[in-house]
Amino acid sequence: MSAVSDPGPGDPLRRLIKLLARLPGIGEKSAMRLALAIVRSNAEYTRALSEAISDVHEHLGLCSVCCDLAAAEVCSICLDARRDPTVICVVAQPQDRMALERAGVFRGRYHVLHGVLDPLAGVGPSELKLSELLARLEGRAGVEEIIVATSPNVEGDATALYVSKLLEPLGIAVTRIASGVAVGGELEYADMTTLHRALEDRRKI
Amino acid sequence: MSAVSDPGPGDPLRRLIKLLARLPGIGEKSAMRLALAIVRSNAEYTRALSEAISDVHEHLGLCSVCCDLAAAEVCSICLDARRDPTVICVVAQPQDRMALERAGVFRGRYHVLHGVLDPLAGVGPSELKLSELLARLEGRAGVEEIIVATSPNVEGDATALYVSKLLEPLGIAVTRIASGVAVGGELEYADMTTLHRALEDRRKI
Repeated sequence: MSAVSDPGPGDPLRRLIKLLARLPGIGEKSAMRLALAIVRSNAEYTRALSEAISDVHEHLGLCSVCCDLAAAEVCSICLDARRDPTVICVVAQPQDRMALERAGVFRGRYHVLHGVLDPLAGVGPSELKLSELLARLEGRAGVEEIIVATSPNVEGDATALYVSKLLEPLGIAVTRIASGVAVGGELEYADMTTLHRALEDRRKI
Repeated sequence: MSAVSDPGPGDPLRRLIKLLARLPGIGEKSAMRLALAIVRSNAEYTRALSEAISDVHEHLGLCSVCCDLAAAEVCSICLDARRDPTVICVVAQPQDRMALERAGVFRGRYHVLHGVLDPLAGVGPSELKLSELLARLEGRAGVEEIIVATSPNVEGDATALYVSKLLEPLGIAVTRIASGVAVGGELEYADMTTLHRALEDRRKI
């Protein structure tokens, strides 16, 4: 018998718990905790949250240039003239772009694929924003390097390889972010594949 | 630099992330993950979620009898004639009531205190639904036992003691849920206090 189907607080709370439990990483217990927190919060907060949720769906679309989530037709990064237009960093998801921005290590432009190649999950090239990337590059010159910053796993590497093959005709340098033992990480606890990669990609000091 | 203050996806998403991050147990990363999941979900889901959130605040109040969260003036359990009216289980929070219902081990009525005595946190008797409990018991006869099912910790025990003292004049039996080594739990890993309680409350086989 689940909290969702249990009698008591009545429909509104049960419905909210049910809906929250559908979010990723939110189990039934978390959904209940969140729902009760929302119930206890002041009206101003719940109104704001309720509005924000409908807002993101209504007002948030994809940037026509980089395919990142944007409130406008073109996102703030693509509009930022100070960003280097000669380098484009290709990421799988918006949160990857956010992570890079948080780190503040990249001053070029981005392109969000919204996924990685994953044949087993039925995700092929057509599911990703690859044609948009191609169009963007064919459109105007000036782009000298494409850095593929997909995660260093099978899907991420396959996607990186695919992108490099796809852009070969354009004669633009396609690079891949380095992977190896995480900075601050313990070699002792690094997994086999990471160590293998770390050795393979070793560089002169 | 935080994800919330980072540029990019624009205001709607940032605002949603900020609001979600205010929920208990939701850090910035989780808030971002949830917000992006909401963005990706279909319009029907976001509308439902948005409505459910405003609904709970508008339509959810406290049951006039047991003080549990209820969509109506009286909750479904208090209205359920099959529930034993002679036993009332006093719990701290709605989720405790839900947990007992999930277990399906109690067929009596409930009373939700909405907290436990915690002087350090400034929670005194007046902050709890104790007067409501007293009024409920003085109101009508027929209640033979009050089971205090607050958690077996300092605050929970203090609250249980307070309730028993409070109801002494009414001559109603006040009992406390048993506590000890959890069923299925390993004695080896039980903490000192639990073992102490388990020995103290030992019973004849």
